[in-house]
Amino acid sequence: MNGAEGLIRSLLASGVDTCFTNPGTSEMHFVAALDRIEGMRCVLALFEGVVTGAADGYGRMKDRPASTLLHLGPGLANGLANLHNARRAYTPIVNVVGEHATWHQRYDPPLASPIEQIARSNSCWVKTTASPQTVGEDAAAAVAASMEAPGGSATLVLPADVAWTEGGSVAAKRPVPPRRKVDEARVRAAADALRKGRAALVLNGPMLRAGPLELCGRIAAATGAELLCPTQMNRAERGAGRVAIDRIPYVVEMAQKRLANLRALVLVNSRQPVNFFAYPEKPSLPMTKDCEVLALAELEEDGVDAAERLADLLGARKSEPKREPLSRPALPTGATTLPGLAAVIAALMPEQCIVSDESITSGRGLVAATKNAPPHDWLVNPGGSIGFAMPVAIGAAVACPDRKVLCLQSDGAGMYTVQALWTMARESLDIVTLVFANRAYEILKGELKSVGAGEPGRRARDMLEIGRPDLDWVALAKGQGVPGSRAGDLDELARQLGAALREKGPRLIEVRL
Amino acid sequence: MNGAEGLIRSLLASGVDTCFTNPGTSEMHFVAALDRIEGMRCVLALFEGVVTGAADGYGRMKDRPASTLLHLGPGLANGLANLHNARRAYTPIVNVVGEHATWHQRYDPPLASPIEQIARSNSCWVKTTASPQTVGEDAAAAVAASMEAPGGSATLVLPADVAWTEGGSVAAKRPVPPRRKVDEARVRAAADALRKGRAALVLNGPMLRAGPLELCGRIAAATGAELLCPTQMNRAERGAGRVAIDRIPYVVEMAQKRLANLRALVLVNSRQPVNFFAYPEKPSLPMTKDCEVLALAELEEDGVDAAERLADLLGARKSEPKREPLSRPALPTGATTLPGLAAVIAALMPEQCIVSDESITSGRGLVAATKNAPPHDWLVNPGGSIGFAMPVAIGAAVACPDRKVLCLQSDGAGMYTVQALWTMARESLDIVTLVFANRAYEILKGELKSVGAGEPGRRARDMLEIGRPDLDWVALAKGQGVPGSRAGDLDELARQLGAALREKGPRLIEVRL
Repeated sequence: MNGAEGLIRSLLASGVDTCFTNPGTSEMHFVAALDRIEGMRCVLALFEGVVTGAADGYGRMKDRPASTLLHLGPGLANGLANLHNARRAYTPIVNVVGEHATWHQRYDPPLASPIEQIARSNSCWVKTTASPQTVGEDAAAAVAASMEAPGGSATLVLPADVAWTEGGSVAAKRPVPPRRKVDEARVRAAADALRKGRAALVLNGPMLRAGPLELCGRIAAATGAELLCPTQMNRAERGAGRVAIDRIPYVVEMAQKRLANLRALVLVNSRQPVNFFAYPEKPSLPMTKDCEVLALAELEEDGVDAAERLADLLGARKSEPKREPLSRPALPTGATTLPGLAAVIAALMPEQCIVSDESITSGRGLVAATKNAPPHDWLVNPGGSIGFAMPVAIGAAVACPDRKVLCLQSDGAGMYTVQALWTMARESLDIVTLVFANRAYEILKGELKSVGAGEPGRRARDMLEIGRPDLDWVALAKGQGVPGSRAGDLDELARQLGAALREKGPRLIEVRL
Repeated sequence: MNGAEGLIRSLLASGVDTCFTNPGTSEMHFVAALDRIEGMRCVLALFEGVVTGAADGYGRMKDRPASTLLHLGPGLANGLANLHNARRAYTPIVNVVGEHATWHQRYDPPLASPIEQIARSNSCWVKTTASPQTVGEDAAAAVAASMEAPGGSATLVLPADVAWTEGGSVAAKRPVPPRRKVDEARVRAAADALRKGRAALVLNGPMLRAGPLELCGRIAAATGAELLCPTQMNRAERGAGRVAIDRIPYVVEMAQKRLANLRALVLVNSRQPVNFFAYPEKPSLPMTKDCEVLALAELEEDGVDAAERLADLLGARKSEPKREPLSRPALPTGATTLPGLAAVIAALMPEQCIVSDESITSGRGLVAATKNAPPHDWLVNPGGSIGFAMPVAIGAAVACPDRKVLCLQSDGAGMYTVQALWTMARESLDIVTLVFANRAYEILKGELKSVGAGEPGRRARDMLEIGRPDLDWVALAKGQGVPGSRAGDLDELARQLGAALREKGPRLIEVRL
């Protein structure tokens, strides 16, 4: 057994059975070993940003890591933007990055680059494995590190000679340290803050799953506290029957208005709300200056346990939470408008679907419009590096093959990882991608004004508009083997989306805005 | 004048008048300033790998930098792979990377990441500019740093508040230190080595331009030395009338055979030859162990001056160099073969065209087949991170609008930066892209054997073949506004390529292999 085989067998022993790949020469022994080992599903992508985004989507849905397989420093670099997003989502991922053979590195061959340095920018754990004898333990350590709360990318660098040399070892799964319990003072402080009124629980991470959310709903019902999640939520279990929670808006003025009345924010596995960007004469934080911010549970702490103790202290265990009722809008007709678009989606989205949302300006009303749809999962990009939704949809579809994935993709962002469509086709993934084609980085037009740069002239507009030529998304899908269609109005959209949702397999619908 | 305006005016004062961009919110003041300032040509790309690759192509053709405009750490990360390639080509580039406003950074907003750390992996100079007052001098320093021999990426990080605050300064161009002259001992040592026989001059960088190459051709003629360039040549002025030079092959056994007879390699602005990858039981260097390697001029030294002095010492100034004769093959017909493909290109490529070559396995015979074509420039990827040719073609076409650019693109590599086609269409760039569609990472099949991993089984083959579904490059081009066609045999290829070369503007031809 060589080092590559030891690595794969150790990943399997630690529960990692899915690998998103874009390999090169230095990873060939890993690839060759796949033929000798049962149980590792490998999914090829044509660009590394798809690989890492898919691993993000997978890890969010499974709560355990997929592996990536990346080619040296440049391959890792190409995957770095979606690893940035995954870092902000605290998604467990194990990156395997090939490296030149140890004795070849001194010659600084063409593809050499500082892999560990590049990896550290977005990993919680980085190690170059030294020998086939250590590769098993290193793999087990990487898996455990990726899952240690709050979760993150663990990057294992694998020199080619370690991969091909005999003596590979297989290690058993390592235990993941449990989340730390918070001390009683924090539970009491949170209870005091909630009792004073005009307070909100701000939830993220594991607290946005249905069970913990219900618990927090009981606390809210007992105390009058509001339930909020940050703009940058990771994954929310929501929809009809789930407890109602409000997402803090992206636009600063709207966020300020939403939080204006609050005197305390009690964070549970959430960072404090922060504006995405700075603007002249505007504060960095959306809450008022006299709003107290306290953490019931930090990101890595046991928020569920803390909330249970808080509920007990407040006598809230039996309070009835406010649940979202089931309510579908009627199918709208006529010309495409953003509210109409949101209504079509809310009317048709199937129960237990997974939404990968990078709709940006086209989707500002979507979260509100779908809260009464049948129960579903909603995945958001908490890192803000665009090119997120289609890769994440791949990972979600691989993780949950029995659930429909609805990918809401703005056109500008979609182009960063457009290669994702090919992997959807190759793997026959059950993903319906709606591309919102407004032919602009529309959000930047607003941002240009928000940062005080005034109205764009012709040259500035040229940098913000991506028409001339218009992208033809149906052709881009066809070029990669995904059946596509174009919806010119809401009637066409409803018909095409309805048909796509009834079938299995990848579909793309370009929604002309 | 705010900081952004001071930056742009300073770049212009230093001779930087072209900016490849993919901006975001933090760069909006740079974008807005474009409307107030004449003279900066901005070229938008839909993915940052296109931005940086275009800057590489531009810098290689102009010998002075273009600027890039990138959005924060993730935008830089997306451009990093082609900055890696540019680092290996020693291409002058000035990267402008937006950063959050200084006072916003302490809140670690979603898009925050260690920009300088990411930049250092591939930059020769990195600085975060501190204020509008310093931005002018920092810009001038960045331009000078990028051009200091051997050349590289200078990365200037621009916080948003520095961009939008009044007080922007404009700095004059800084002188670039001249290349250091080599001492006489090195010239004498090189002369001694050449006089002993069985020696080669190994040239790269500025030595592969027509003039210095001719000078080295005289030295070769006078001494019997061979002329070689490494596999990873940067830019070669070659073709009929130019001095003949041989490129060291990529495949290790072929490189070993080519160099087997040589007892001395005299490097002139070239690194020593090194194998791209390590293989079990094979050495890292292709030359024999008793082959002496000495540098007449290191990368950053004045190779042209050194070669002139060497020619004088050897009395070679008047020797007649061996020039390539003009010779075009007859147009082949029939089924597509790799030699036939090379012959069609050699028969049709226009005088003074610029070839951006990422043909990989499909193009192994191309360099030899085109040496007697009319004079042209040949750009190669010395960094080995694929996704190079189409972006570099963009930069070359922007730099040299009167020359036809021929982009030789393998299909697997082309997908990494497929978004380049859109920029070709928007800017009506005079680029003919030939996509060699073998529907595989064909090179990896050979590499799998070379690293001793045997014959691939089904699961390994799935990671090496990119058919199922086949990519439809004509559709991918159409989707981005580039007219495309498919050549099923050599007759169709000759007809389609001939027509594309006679017209102006972007065209794509998918060559089915």
